[in-house]
Amino acid sequence: MAPRPAAVPAPAREYALVESCLAEYKALTMSAMMEAIPRQEPRRYLYDLVPLYPLRPGTGFRPGLLLASCGAFGGTAASAIHSAVAIELFHNAFLVHDDVEDGSLSRRGFPTLSAEQGLALAVNVGDAMNVLSIEPLMRNLRVLGPQLTWQVFVEIQHMVRQSVEGQAMELGWVRDNVVDLTDADYLRMTLKKTCWYTCIHPCRIGALIGSRGAIDLDRFNRFGYYMGAAFQIQDDILNLMADERKYGKEIDGDIWEGKRTLMLIHVYGSATPAERERVERFLARPRGERRERDVRWVHALMDKYGSLPHATARAHELAVAALDEFEEAYRDAPDTREKRFIEEIVLYMVERDL
Amino acid sequence: MAPRPAAVPAPAREYALVESCLAEYKALTMSAMMEAIPRQEPRRYLYDLVPLYPLRPGTGFRPGLLLASCGAFGGTAASAIHSAVAIELFHNAFLVHDDVEDGSLSRRGFPTLSAEQGLALAVNVGDAMNVLSIEPLMRNLRVLGPQLTWQVFVEIQHMVRQSVEGQAMELGWVRDNVVDLTDADYLRMTLKKTCWYTCIHPCRIGALIGSRGAIDLDRFNRFGYYMGAAFQIQDDILNLMADERKYGKEIDGDIWEGKRTLMLIHVYGSATPAERERVERFLARPRGERRERDVRWVHALMDKYGSLPHATARAHELAVAALDEFEEAYRDAPDTREKRFIEEIVLYMVERDL
Repeated sequence: MAPRPAAVPAPAREYALVESCLAEYKALTMSAMMEAIPRQEPRRYLYDLVPLYPLRPGTGFRPGLLLASCGAFGGTAASAIHSAVAIELFHNAFLVHDDVEDGSLSRRGFPTLSAEQGLALAVNVGDAMNVLSIEPLMRNLRVLGPQLTWQVFVEIQHMVRQSVEGQAMELGWVRDNVVDLTDADYLRMTLKKTCWYTCIHPCRIGALIGSRGAIDLDRFNRFGYYMGAAFQIQDDILNLMADERKYGKEIDGDIWEGKRTLMLIHVYGSATPAERERVERFLARPRGERRERDVRWVHALMDKYGSLPHATARAHELAVAALDEFEEAYRDAPDTREKRFIEEIVLYMVERDL
Repeated sequence: MAPRPAAVPAPAREYALVESCLAEYKALTMSAMMEAIPRQEPRRYLYDLVPLYPLRPGTGFRPGLLLASCGAFGGTAASAIHSAVAIELFHNAFLVHDDVEDGSLSRRGFPTLSAEQGLALAVNVGDAMNVLSIEPLMRNLRVLGPQLTWQVFVEIQHMVRQSVEGQAMELGWVRDNVVDLTDADYLRMTLKKTCWYTCIHPCRIGALIGSRGAIDLDRFNRFGYYMGAAFQIQDDILNLMADERKYGKEIDGDIWEGKRTLMLIHVYGSATPAERERVERFLARPRGERRERDVRWVHALMDKYGSLPHATARAHELAVAALDEFEEAYRDAPDTREKRFIEEIVLYMVERDL
């Protein structure tokens, strides 16, 4: 599919509102999260390790979106903070296990938890973070009452189910070296692996709390799907541009790991039979046996076929679609700073370089 | 510490009641669990893998104890079945991750999930099983009402926290090659890693549901602690006798993995300085570099110092202590089949050979 330049907005937009809101939401979330992490034994094998990922640089999209969506529907930050902490802890637990599963070496500019602490402790720390993310949801009871607390639980349960299902698809494709994938396969996997927990449920849960259960939540599904898919594609693109970035994962990490990104699907679909065969041979090797020159060759092949511009164009199309849906999703929210933040974060997600 | 033969009951007791109750409870739990496991995509990378461990041979102590404790206080199996399923699913999730963390090769007579499906999918399947174990607890709402449903949640949350804390201790000791451990350290770790989720909370949750919240649950803590510790010691002993067993893990698996069992602590405390140094050198190697002749040598050293009889004696002492506590814990439960099952399972746990 050819890029559609019409959908690509002008570069170098200003995101002062987005960035200042993100910073505020992140500060709120982190301070509440640090209170929620036990300071007790076992320390060096468990609770000292739990804050390591959360304390690394990160934008805090998910709690930010949740808190803003709550505010947009008239709720206070205090009413949504426990849910924001839960989602951020869950996200970090997911990252810890994701790094184990992918055999990744660095995360947010530092060694992964498994590289630093060993695989066994890392798996267990991820488990502990999943357990700890339930506790703020239980604390909701006093702030939100039983009905809303229960509804947030139901949202979170759906969110986590979707995430493990999406993760299973992605890991299975890599393990079995599935190569005949389409953009639609990628988007289906991304909806499950990323969109629900990164965008859809943060919007839904925020609105649920903000409106005290008064609005239908399914209106956020398409908005969050388009935004989340745009976010994930941009994430994959940034992974291939890692040398230009201050923080991040290893350069070309996704190629090393054989991740089925939109770019890999595109390059495989565009390549000659001989190139395609070489891509397949490369992907058939276990990660530890892949060679740097092959990784560079795959990257160069993506450059040759324009896989990155292709993916960028798709991300922008999705962002534009999300902006259309935004009107519908937040139609009865008054014009507030929170609402503008949500609108502006859509393009920020595909234009960010971090 | 010398064995105390007085505490050792006569061997070859009959456990017809225990075994028939266990079989009944297990059948109930398995049929409810199979209904709770989604039959949907992704199948081969996720939901087909979830029942693999639960379907392997296993006694079902935990759901059995929970259902019996509920029955002993007048509750029906239907009122406790969702909680029994949750605990059994949680247990199996724990086993999946435990096998990844320990680098184990076989479980219940078959390859571990990570050996069979690869590490990445295994970690994710364990995560999915943890997620799925929440769903029966949500189904409690219709059967138990909001108050009891919430109390069961609180119990489960404590249970899972304790388990990851105990697991962290055990994994940390192995990773850092901590050798100066005492029986008390072992028992503290075992309380967290095993006793809460294997005995204490099954008894508590069963009694909570059976009595509809009418009795104080802390009365089960000592009973479950003694029983659980006895259970874990027997489990460790069986691991070293694996060649005599029909099903199980690899022979001397715990020695291969460097697990800090009561026998390892005993042999280290009994050994000469030269032997001790060789034990330490053995434990300092990464698991993959340990040699079979060294594993055999450690096992022979345990035989030389009587580490297995020592551990057997401790397990029986703990079982006898549990029987004392049983009187207190179940004092106001009428004499029923369920109550007798719980009493008889205490010695069964230390005399079982499977």
